[in-house]
Amino acid sequence: MSIPARVTINEVGPRDGLQNEDGFVETGKKVEFIERLAGTGLRRIEAVSFVHPKAIPQMRDASAVMAALPRPEGATYLALVPNEVGARNAIAANTHEIGTVVSASESHNRSNVQRSVAESLNGIAGVAQLAAAAGTPWQGYISTAFGCPYEGDVPSAKVVEIARALVALGATAISLGDTIGAANPRQVSTLIRILRTAIPDTPLRLHFHDTRGTALANVLAALEEGIDSFDGSVGGLGGCPYAPGAAGNVATEDLVYMLHEMGVETGIDLQALVGVARWAEQLVGRPLPGRVKQAGDSLFRGAA
Amino acid sequence: MSIPARVTINEVGPRDGLQNEDGFVETGKKVEFIERLAGTGLRRIEAVSFVHPKAIPQMRDASAVMAALPRPEGATYLALVPNEVGARNAIAANTHEIGTVVSASESHNRSNVQRSVAESLNGIAGVAQLAAAAGTPWQGYISTAFGCPYEGDVPSAKVVEIARALVALGATAISLGDTIGAANPRQVSTLIRILRTAIPDTPLRLHFHDTRGTALANVLAALEEGIDSFDGSVGGLGGCPYAPGAAGNVATEDLVYMLHEMGVETGIDLQALVGVARWAEQLVGRPLPGRVKQAGDSLFRGAA
Repeated sequence: MSIPARVTINEVGPRDGLQNEDGFVETGKKVEFIERLAGTGLRRIEAVSFVHPKAIPQMRDASAVMAALPRPEGATYLALVPNEVGARNAIAANTHEIGTVVSASESHNRSNVQRSVAESLNGIAGVAQLAAAAGTPWQGYISTAFGCPYEGDVPSAKVVEIARALVALGATAISLGDTIGAANPRQVSTLIRILRTAIPDTPLRLHFHDTRGTALANVLAALEEGIDSFDGSVGGLGGCPYAPGAAGNVATEDLVYMLHEMGVETGIDLQALVGVARWAEQLVGRPLPGRVKQAGDSLFRGAA
Repeated sequence: MSIPARVTINEVGPRDGLQNEDGFVETGKKVEFIERLAGTGLRRIEAVSFVHPKAIPQMRDASAVMAALPRPEGATYLALVPNEVGARNAIAANTHEIGTVVSASESHNRSNVQRSVAESLNGIAGVAQLAAAAGTPWQGYISTAFGCPYEGDVPSAKVVEIARALVALGATAISLGDTIGAANPRQVSTLIRILRTAIPDTPLRLHFHDTRGTALANVLAALEEGIDSFDGSVGGLGGCPYAPGAAGNVATEDLVYMLHEMGVETGIDLQALVGVARWAEQLVGRPLPGRVKQAGDSLFRGAA
């Protein structure tokens, strides 16, 4: 089995997770959450999104979170921005990296941000200019890259077209999102090969949901294609608020567990990460779907 | 991606699932459950186990279930037997195929059947003689083949030794059980290759648990090694009563969903199978962990 020896995990719980929670999590708790995550060895954490407070009230304190957050050596904090206003705020908050989102399907993009895909790409051009001027790297997230809750199948040609547009605007990486957990391993393998040909010089990151139990199988298929960067949300916190029936980012600790068991290094302390997953359950006041924390700790082994 | 075009699913819900439920399911309901499963296109169903009624009271009506069960063309009903008494009863009940179990780890075998592995293999020799005399095929299940709740890692040499012993006794297939959901895809790939060399003429079947979310990733690794026969339990019913912390056979409908999405044929009607999973939740009076039935039906596609 030929897979990367080391994988980078991008923790999205504080942003993608919390923004789907109803109750507002106070700023200090958000900061504590992010610090606890960084303490497990996670080096890339999507901390906040700079969105309009009416659209996502949970993220209304994004600037305050970023201001209060200590910046330990080696930690990279990412923020999602929907437009130029968000990008300005993110840059002003000394965000290490910016992420921008566009859906691969028109219907999902309209539902998500009330714009066409072309309009979103125009907006991202503005974000890209601001980021370039500030020297801030930015990555392009392509949502519904493996299936859309409204349109069903998403043509790979559409994903390629958007990825090329994002790279032309200066994206330093492309993240493919299985927003509704509809991807299957064969499709993952195929789409990665197509993108490797279309944008050979741009790193790919994969963002899977475990809605139908296939997340780790899709991770395996991606690993076998050489992908070495994956998103996870601690405990399986979050989902997609605009995708009916969608639930469940893959739990970071389940992802890390499988990688470690296969001998793949992540630099993360799995026991500590499971501890943060349990802490996050108390933070949001409900059980989270991650599997490993329910199975007990006795079987942990493998590389840290 | 090179994987088999067609896969056989062995449904274990009525046996492995129900025997881990506290409340006794009456004979008529068991028969209805099995008939509903057969109605989805499932052709191999582990219907009962012929065990001592004091050991597993849930299965005390195994003979009555087998007697009441219609035998539609093409349906194969399997029964698990722990010893010669069970084998005699299974043969008397016109069971199509017999399964016998031995653990790859001494501690789990002692906990499970109060015997050493060698004593279990001696008992299986008696079962094999009865099966041969009756012309009934039998398969050998190796539990804890990927990890033991008491001993941790299980040496592949031990699995090979037991598999060879079972084949020498006449087993028509070997089923490898990840009893506690501890397998990882690299280990699955490696163990399959080792067994393919050790017992090249005997079909392998794989039995995965989703305790840590890795079941379908392990299925994918096995598919890539050419394995075309997997156990599933509808809804994710059941677990292992003697393995602490173990929960969750992979849900048959989740397995079938992934296979169909990848273009692999199973002969099973997925929508109908999800219907049986929901029916099984009412049968046992609790929600079952299978993921696909929680995600809604809108995305089903692929081969039947």
